[in-house]
Amino acid sequence: MKSILILNGPNLNLLGIREPTQYGNQTLADVEDMCRAAGERLGVSVDCLQSNHEGELIDAIHKAREGVLDGSVLGIVFNAGAYTHTSVALHDAIKGTDVPVIEVHISNVHARESFRHHSYISPAAAGIIVGLGVDGYVLGMEALVRRATQA
Amino acid sequence: MKSILILNGPNLNLLGIREPTQYGNQTLADVEDMCRAAGERLGVSVDCLQSNHEGELIDAIHKAREGVLDGSVLGIVFNAGAYTHTSVALHDAIKGTDVPVIEVHISNVHARESFRHHSYISPAAAGIIVGLGVDGYVLGMEALVRRATQA
Amino acid sequence: MKSILILNGPNLNLLGIREPTQYGNQTLADVEDMCRAAGERLGVSVDCLQSNHEGELIDAIHKAREGVLDGSVLGIVFNAGAYTHTSVALHDAIKGTDVPVIEVHISNVHARESFRHHSYISPAAAGIIVGLGVDGYVLGMEALVRRATQA
Amino acid sequence: MKSILILNGPNLNLLGIREPTQYGNQTLADVEDMCRAAGERLGVSVDCLQSNHEGELIDAIHKAREGVLDGSVLGIVFNAGAYTHTSVALHDAIKGTDVPVIEVHISNVHARESFRHHSYISPAAAGIIVGLGVDGYVLGMEALVRRATQA
Amino acid sequence: MKSILILNGPNLNLLGIREPTQYGNQTLADVEDMCRAAGERLGVSVDCLQSNHEGELIDAIHKAREGVLDGSVLGIVFNAGAYTHTSVALHDAIKGTDVPVIEVHISNVHARESFRHHSYISPAAAGIIVGLGVDGYVLGMEALVRRATQA
Amino acid sequence: MKSILILNGPNLNLLGIREPTQYGNQTLADVEDMCRAAGERLGVSVDCLQSNHEGELIDAIHKAREGVLDGSVLGIVFNAGAYTHTSVALHDAIKGTDVPVIEVHISNVHARESFRHHSYISPAAAGIIVGLGVDGYVLGMEALVRRATQA
Amino acid sequence: MKSILILNGPNLNLLGIREPTQYGNQTLADVEDMCRAAGERLGVSVDCLQSNHEGELIDAIHKAREGVLDGSVLGIVFNAGAYTHTSVALHDAIKGTDVPVIEVHISNVHARESFRHHSYISPAAAGIIVGLGVDGYVLGMEALVRRATQA
Amino acid sequence: MKSILILNGPNLNLLGIREPTQYGNQTLADVEDMCRAAGERLGVSVDCLQSNHEGELIDAIHKAREGVLDGSVLGIVFNAGAYTHTSVALHDAIKGTDVPVIEVHISNVHARESFRHHSYISPAAAGIIVGLGVDGYVLGMEALVRRATQA
Amino acid sequence: MKSILILNGPNLNLLGIREPTQYGNQTLADVEDMCRAAGERLGVSVDCLQSNHEGELIDAIHKAREGVLDGSVLGIVFNAGAYTHTSVALHDAIKGTDVPVIEVHISNVHARESFRHHSYISPAAAGIIVGLGVDGYVLGMEALVRRATQA
Amino acid sequence: MKSILILNGPNLNLLGIREPTQYGNQTLADVEDMCRAAGERLGVSVDCLQSNHEGELIDAIHKAREGVLDGSVLGIVFNAGAYTHTSVALHDAIKGTDVPVIEVHISNVHARESFRHHSYISPAAAGIIVGLGVDGYVLGMEALVRRATQA
Amino acid sequence: MKSILILNGPNLNLLGIREPTQYGNQTLADVEDMCRAAGERLGVSVDCLQSNHEGELIDAIHKAREGVLDGSVLGIVFNAGAYTHTSVALHDAIKGTDVPVIEVHISNVHARESFRHHSYISPAAAGIIVGLGVDGYVLGMEALVRRATQA
Amino acid sequence: MKSILILNGPNLNLLGIREPTQYGNQTLADVEDMCRAAGERLGVSVDCLQSNHEGELIDAIHKAREGVLDGSVLGIVFNAGAYTHTSVALHDAIKGTDVPVIEVHISNVHARESFRHHSYISPAAAGIIVGLGVDGYVLGMEALVRRATQA
Repeated sequence: MKSILILNGPNLNLLGIREPTQYGNQTLADVEDMCRAAGERLGVSVDCLQSNHEGELIDAIHKAREGVLDGSVLGIVFNAGAYTHTSVALHDAIKGTDVPVIEVHISNVHARESFRHHSYISPAAAGIIVGLGVDGYVLGMEALVRRATQA
Repeated sequence: MKSILILNGPNLNLLGIREPTQYGNQTLADVEDMCRAAGERLGVSVDCLQSNHEGELIDAIHKAREGVLDGSVLGIVFNAGAYTHTSVALHDAIKGTDVPVIEVHISNVHARESFRHHSYISPAAAGIIVGLGVDGYVLGMEALVRRATQA
Repeated sequence: MKSILILNGPNLNLLGIREPTQYGNQTLADVEDMCRAAGERLGVSVDCLQSNHEGELIDAIHKAREGVLDGSVLGIVFNAGAYTHTSVALHDAIKGTDVPVIEVHISNVHARESFRHHSYISPAAAGIIVGLGVDGYVLGMEALVRRATQA
Repeated sequence: MKSILILNGPNLNLLGIREPTQYGNQTLADVEDMCRAAGERLGVSVDCLQSNHEGELIDAIHKAREGVLDGSVLGIVFNAGAYTHTSVALHDAIKGTDVPVIEVHISNVHARESFRHHSYISPAAAGIIVGLGVDGYVLGMEALVRRATQA
Repeated sequence: MKSILILNGPNLNLLGIREPTQYGNQTLADVEDMCRAAGERLGVSVDCLQSNHEGELIDAIHKAREGVLDGSVLGIVFNAGAYTHTSVALHDAIKGTDVPVIEVHISNVHARESFRHHSYISPAAAGIIVGLGVDGYVLGMEALVRRATQA
Repeated sequence: MKSILILNGPNLNLLGIREPTQYGNQTLADVEDMCRAAGERLGVSVDCLQSNHEGELIDAIHKAREGVLDGSVLGIVFNAGAYTHTSVALHDAIKGTDVPVIEVHISNVHARESFRHHSYISPAAAGIIVGLGVDGYVLGMEALVRRATQA
Repeated sequence: MKSILILNGPNLNLLGIREPTQYGNQTLADVEDMCRAAGERLGVSVDCLQSNHEGELIDAIHKAREGVLDGSVLGIVFNAGAYTHTSVALHDAIKGTDVPVIEVHISNVHARESFRHHSYISPAAAGIIVGLGVDGYVLGMEALVRRATQA
Repeated sequence: MKSILILNGPNLNLLGIREPTQYGNQTLADVEDMCRAAGERLGVSVDCLQSNHEGELIDAIHKAREGVLDGSVLGIVFNAGAYTHTSVALHDAIKGTDVPVIEVHISNVHARESFRHHSYISPAAAGIIVGLGVDGYVLGMEALVRRATQA
Repeated sequence: MKSILILNGPNLNLLGIREPTQYGNQTLADVEDMCRAAGERLGVSVDCLQSNHEGELIDAIHKAREGVLDGSVLGIVFNAGAYTHTSVALHDAIKGTDVPVIEVHISNVHARESFRHHSYISPAAAGIIVGLGVDGYVLGMEALVRRATQA
Repeated sequence: MKSILILNGPNLNLLGIREPTQYGNQTLADVEDMCRAAGERLGVSVDCLQSNHEGELIDAIHKAREGVLDGSVLGIVFNAGAYTHTSVALHDAIKGTDVPVIEVHISNVHARESFRHHSYISPAAAGIIVGLGVDGYVLGMEALVRRATQA
Repeated sequence: MKSILILNGPNLNLLGIREPTQYGNQTLADVEDMCRAAGERLGVSVDCLQSNHEGELIDAIHKAREGVLDGSVLGIVFNAGAYTHTSVALHDAIKGTDVPVIEVHISNVHARESFRHHSYISPAAAGIIVGLGVDGYVLGMEALVRRATQA
Repeated sequence: MKSILILNGPNLNLLGIREPTQYGNQTLADVEDMCRAAGERLGVSVDCLQSNHEGELIDAIHKAREGVLDGSVLGIVFNAGAYTHTSVALHDAIKGTDVPVIEVHISNVHARESFRHHSYISPAAAGIIVGLGVDGYVLGMEALVRRATQA
């Protein structure tokens, strides 16, 4: 069975706690469970990783690349949190590995502070889902599955 | 049965013809048929409108507002094409009517010319799906249905 | 009897409905009636046009030009709505016809989003009235009448 | 009888003298007389102050605040002259006192040098009247009276 | 006989009337007659369309595309007027149809206001002729004919 | 006994009145009393000056310079209010006199409008205390005393 | 006894070594000892952490949040070093946890390179102390204590 | 017989060699021969100059001014190459001499790097022809002849 | 005998004291004596005014206007100090009075901080002398005398 | 024997894999072997470190500082990868330690996306070598050796 | 006898011819004669050079450096014309030679197009005289003489 | 024997004289001798050219192109001096000829004025060596030789 990596960046461990009007009440564990359930429905296994360290997120993308090459990994559903707006290194990690990445944001970043309007992830992403709450993770998984089916 | 409006802006009547490496080979009729098929699966009827006229798109959003108020319309899946980047009037139409709008772009606009990186639709949208090809329309429909279910 | 054109741009048909904290509770019909009543007091007839189409607004200005030339039209009280901020074509229509135009905004656009701070109408306008609610239309009419008297 | 303050900023003592194609031929005394006459018609008394000193203009707004609080002052018709474009302190004076201020400019500042296009007064003003010549002062007085009546 | 479309955008129906020091004294009808005469000399038929509506200009380009495909149309001589500076949609219409377009401006837009210095048409155009008065239309026609001959 | 000047700029005479959610409920007299009390504790006398006039603030800094030279003045705790963001002249007054100045802002200016994010005082200041409410004045006094002790 | 976290970001382990004209001669150990001494005087315990890793600083803020919730932690005195100017993630960590943070900079960052003039920490901070040398840490501690007392 | 100067700036001696996809295969000698042939057809003599030296191009414009004054020169067809984008001095040379200059660019500079989008020549030019390949030189000659006939 | 006003703005009373490497060792009194001596040589009387108040500088320009009108004043040698860079009101005072003003700066402002590179005085000045030390005042007087002679 | 640190930043572990047209086919191990071989020729030992973690790169520079102080380390050849463009912290680490750093980029970053044109490393570097492929590392080593010899 | 170089840049050979409302009616020969006459009065010889070639102007500055070193040259009065705004090379030539240069502009460049507001010469100049017509050359000579006397 | 051109731009003839703290004490002749010596070691002949004229530098690149084509020239080591920052024409000369160019700067331009941070040469260069003093020329030669060997 192929797997999908649910990769969450800085502060997303606070999900359900931090600014609930922006991010809703579900915790990260809730979201990861929801993704695992969706994985069962979609016939894929789900790996979950959250880190506040830019370097660990880069490492995770590099590791996923090996899975893509040996056919065991479909891609990454990636919410890079605040690194979205500042990390050229994550941009390069995605570009350099060719891992299919669906960029997800829970809140509508374009309706917030202007420094959240630009994403270094977007130009390297296979798709972008913004503002649909935690459903975005599942829609991202569906997109990766559909993408693999169509390829 | 509730309905969803599939609203397409300028030049999307050229779908399947214009820059196929950017937009794929399916025509607008193909996409609209695909949406209708998805509608059947999701239990919603589907209305489709394409216009190259900014004013007609505004009119369509205003009309959808009436359906939202009487409960017959779930929302709009809206690909505003080039007006995405220039139309404050469409922004105001969405903001002023409170019609749920899922913004869709077939191609990854963030990987193209810089004048395509800013969207006046996004800050007013209920969600944004970018770069997933014509699948974005169906994912947008699903998001509107899920949204109505959760509300 | 000379006439004044009350010209309203995109989304102003939603007046009384859209964001009432910004725009108040009076509908466009209320405002047009108010203008007609003011016209009676001022001794001018009042024509009203609202359109969401940039081209129709241009056409209306061109048509008003003929009235200005034959002395039947005093000028236009013009709320260009969102086209205020994006339409060089409306700027050119006013500049090119020399029709006296009083630019009106119901809300204080300078206290809102920064993309509403610039107006392409202003440099071509004979006068600008901002933030005085729907009274701005009547003040604009008075200004056109006073202008005609002084000329 | 309630009063209105006609407040004029730097260089407006030169009215009728300075750049008559921009500002017309009436002197400041003419304008103040015109405002007093309009005051009689509107049933309000009129106080007039002109100063080239930013600090005196701030002081005048602070003083008007007391009149607003005890019900003796309706508001200010304020032409801040060049301080319009540079004075955050006047912005704060208006914001901090909640005195109703109608911002007036005799000439169409948006048709002049770009450094005249931005106003620190506007976001704090109750209304803005631009380019209608010295009539703008009277229209501003009418707006303050109407505002008081409607409140 | 092959045809060329002479396509004029907003306010060009005012030609000969609007700002004659910028645009000269010839009316649009004069210019279209001049183009038809030039067409006879060049052995091409000439179709003329002017519209103040962005959407109609897009429609016209789409329609010309069919003529280009069946070999009946050589291309478009296009003066987009003010839409030159604001319309991404017209840019996309030209790019998406691959219709050869010669962009024409009667006046020297680069010697005027800075908002006229940028053109969304130019990067999509087959050629650009600026500031040569109404002769630009004929030179544009010659360029389309020469282009067809050389291809 | 050495003295410290508590210098307040435009609109700070409104303290306790103006936007209490930003600035708290204490009046300027309260704050000056608090500073005098702190002065007793710290063994310094306290002079207080508030002015809405940029020129008077400059004069006050120049006068303080004489006290610094003859050893009677420790420095200035300075809240320049809105002049913080616009006054190169106050910058020069501090730079030119070498009077130790602790810049104080009651509210967190960096969490407010962007035109409050830049300070001309800061590069010339000996220290900066922002957002700690009126306590900032006392902390500023302590810093001046500590500075004098360490020197 | 309640505690305060003294949190230092990248390169602050070089304190006393790196650019002594900017940062003085005291080492980080000296500063931490000074803070512990001040803590004794103020009746709070002091925890100290320095890291060159953005992720570890985020983790530390998250951990402090638990202490704030159970009442054992008063807040953080935080010198984010160079991450001040680049880290949206630290901004989000503070915003998302509501931990009271006093931002401290030893040198006057506003008198240095322009890329040091903007802080992502400031808009999320409870207070900001700049340019007062290592005293700023103690002043920040006092501010946290005073804040807890007043609440 | 009147003459036209064909003036070419830096690197145009490489024509036919440099980036043939941008500039075509014709050498500068070919282009100059083509211009001479066109001159015979148009009844004008043709002088040709190419220089990589900004100063020599200025000198050539100054010299042409004498010919314009004595009636022997119609004007210049000028491809300023890279100096187009950087030379205020060439702008001044054209403005200061009033020599009619038709600016020509072989390639569509607006579809290339952004530093090629601005021209210092354009605001001083009598006309501008861009992207029509080496035909632009001949069209420029025709424009100069027509201009002389109409004057 | 005609007179010249030597007008000095904020902080110039500190001359000889403030930053002597920038401004030299001569006091303002020295400079004014030097100007009076030069006046005797040039056959003009000299009035001197220094103020830290923007409003007083405006008043002084207005007063000089009367002298210009009655032929008793030749003009102003004006060092506006820091107001040079921030005062639109002084710009307007000069523009509105048509008093000949020679702008003087003792130091080379263009070799200092970037916020000193722009002058609101310059576009309204009859001439500008920068960086020649206090000699600039005398050169400015000579220029005013020469100007009066040539007129 | 003195040593040189070959320090590589994020994604450089992908060398030989990631975008080979940009970075060539040699792996990081190949490059490090090449550097060791060059070290033998140059008479220096070579340490190699690659990390995707900004903090670890800072730590490595701090550690190198000790070697520079005790004379065992000549300096660092540093390819900071994407952190080049975003890391003020690495800038400060180099500035604060005075370790001689030769900045190396394998590809010509100035011929790529604009966000790669600015380097925070460069102003702190002892030298910069760009676009010479992996040879840049060896040239950087030679520069460090030559630098040590000349000092 | 010491000498001064009167150095004029591009297009100044057109003096008296080019835009006389900007530059007056005197030719370059007139100006050079005027300078020679002034030289006699001041006891200095005068050398004059005008060139449209940036390189020749650099060469002239380099040559003047030798005269400054051997004491035969006082400095340069330099009107760099359009190169003022574009030439870093002339900036470097002045900086690198330490030749005293008085920058002169005949017209008030700050009252003209914005691209004339910045000067690369100014930060390297010993003084700047703008807008005083051709008198500026003589004032510049006087400044050089006075400078030499004071040194 | 193949040759390398050592090409130096404006003001580099002042090497050893101009700002020695930036550029060192070696004269241009010293540097050219050093390059010739290195050439002997590397088995290449060395041609040297320095010019203050942009046009001559372009000519030299064009001439080198012939040598590259006939195999006699390896490439250019080019220090464009100030033209680095302003010359699109030199950019085009390199791009248009495909001559391998190693860009060299003696000083670290990125640690100097901001107008020296951008290079028009870099995007067209085969490699860039900055801040390594005059050694950069030799390293550039080595790079050209290595490049030829590897090709």
